[in-house]
Amino acid sequence: MSEQEAEAAEARVRKNFRQQGFMKTIGAELTRVASGEVWITMAPTPATSQQHGYVHAGVVTSLLDSACGYAALTLMPPESEVLSVEFKTNLLAPARGELLRAEATVLRSGRTLSVCRADAFAYQGGERVIVATMLGTMMRVVPGREVSR
Amino acid sequence: MSEQEAEAAEARVRKNFRQQGFMKTIGAELTRVASGEVWITMAPTPATSQQHGYVHAGVVTSLLDSACGYAALTLMPPESEVLSVEFKTNLLAPARGELLRAEATVLRSGRTLSVCRADAFAYQGGERVIVATMLGTMMRVVPGREVSR
Amino acid sequence: MSEQEAEAAEARVRKNFRQQGFMKTIGAELTRVASGEVWITMAPTPATSQQHGYVHAGVVTSLLDSACGYAALTLMPPESEVLSVEFKTNLLAPARGELLRAEATVLRSGRTLSVCRADAFAYQGGERVIVATMLGTMMRVVPGREVSR
Amino acid sequence: MSEQEAEAAEARVRKNFRQQGFMKTIGAELTRVASGEVWITMAPTPATSQQHGYVHAGVVTSLLDSACGYAALTLMPPESEVLSVEFKTNLLAPARGELLRAEATVLRSGRTLSVCRADAFAYQGGERVIVATMLGTMMRVVPGREVSR
Repeated sequence: MSEQEAEAAEARVRKNFRQQGFMKTIGAELTRVASGEVWITMAPTPATSQQHGYVHAGVVTSLLDSACGYAALTLMPPESEVLSVEFKTNLLAPARGELLRAEATVLRSGRTLSVCRADAFAYQGGERVIVATMLGTMMRVVPGREVSR
Repeated sequence: MSEQEAEAAEARVRKNFRQQGFMKTIGAELTRVASGEVWITMAPTPATSQQHGYVHAGVVTSLLDSACGYAALTLMPPESEVLSVEFKTNLLAPARGELLRAEATVLRSGRTLSVCRADAFAYQGGERVIVATMLGTMMRVVPGREVSR
Repeated sequence: MSEQEAEAAEARVRKNFRQQGFMKTIGAELTRVASGEVWITMAPTPATSQQHGYVHAGVVTSLLDSACGYAALTLMPPESEVLSVEFKTNLLAPARGELLRAEATVLRSGRTLSVCRADAFAYQGGERVIVATMLGTMMRVVPGREVSR
Repeated sequence: MSEQEAEAAEARVRKNFRQQGFMKTIGAELTRVASGEVWITMAPTPATSQQHGYVHAGVVTSLLDSACGYAALTLMPPESEVLSVEFKTNLLAPARGELLRAEATVLRSGRTLSVCRADAFAYQGGERVIVATMLGTMMRVVPGREVSR
């Protein structure tokens, strides 16, 4: 991928991200967009909490899923869009702290399907703890063509 | 389970649900609590949307996960709490419409682990469409004891 | 699907099944092939056992996976073949008894991807116990075209 | 973990592995046992094949699952045994070649549950290709106590 293509891919990811109302709702930010690698970060608040005050597993999954989708998108041809086919999340520790960051990488980028892995880390008092991990499948779709999983 | 125990289980679920800031954020409501079966419902809004305006896969997963956890909790002894160990979601169709409902049932309720299945349905113009399905593992924890997955 | 198409689909499934050396190795048999529904059955032996003498989780998964793939295949156009994209298995109880049967159904049959659910049951002394469940994604491929996930 | 404990853990793993009839059936061998890390290797044969002659996804999963279970077991107290709770496999490329190797590591080793990641690699003509990846949950059980997921 040329530098120009990489910049175009990043622009596509950033534009797409701004269109996600839910990412705004939870205060999520794109903090890294590189070829096959995307990070999304948020600060936990009561609005994203489950019953113990930790970040809800579904919110953690949202970060991981979006990071996976965008990581896959960075490696797709320019006209592509991306859909989540499926994902699995393992929760490893309570998601609490000042910051939560999902880091996704692409394990395999196919013509149609991409397989991604993402880890979520909580930052608390200078410590970084892995709190969840995802293994998921993303699908390339081309707008204008009949879109279908 | 006696009627009294079932009522106590429902009360526990409803109390726990009210403590989830995130469920309030997305406008989710508990619409059914029975032994081994829980429904959670929400109305899609721009605040829960992904880039195409559909409900974000992570929000759908949040409903499914919470429904699974509470379905498992209804079958656990009174002093129990529940944690998500892991879950897998398959996205089947765009999550759009007037209403989204996650319906969870318990497939196996063990001493420590429960396995749950949940489907999410979108209601649009009188039609009901399955939009996602989850298979997940929930864990019983007893407060006061060292809590650990 | 016409009766003729259903018969052709069954013939395709049965032919494909006979080409699987591994299904022969574990003594697996196709015991039901219908539109969107396939059963595979085997009798546990020491050759398929894990350390406690039960059927190995990977063998149970093999039955579930093959049943899912064939269930998906019955709903695909005639020239199609099927590949497993991914699957998740939850183990629910020891897989032991005289007979083990995987029962798969198609939850969603798409142009490219199918999502299937399958349960494995153990039959022992007249009792039937669910021992595992799978949620998996299958992909349609057309031989001759570049085959790719 | 002391060197002595590590040796005892390895001995436990090797003894357990020999009790698995199915590992013998597919010609699988333990090729690495270290703290939190286990490799299992096999040579593909017609007896382990699916319809295209590649190794059946269920056999690949069997290697990954066993490697995960043993990797988890190496980090558990001496009297422990291990059960698979659940696992998810993504198939990434056809499993063919002279050798197939599953490499598992422990992501989180808890009092009750361990989360493991494993990759399967095919070796063909000097090349190494990743063909599958697993994310799974393993459970510690203590023989003599009521064994239960």
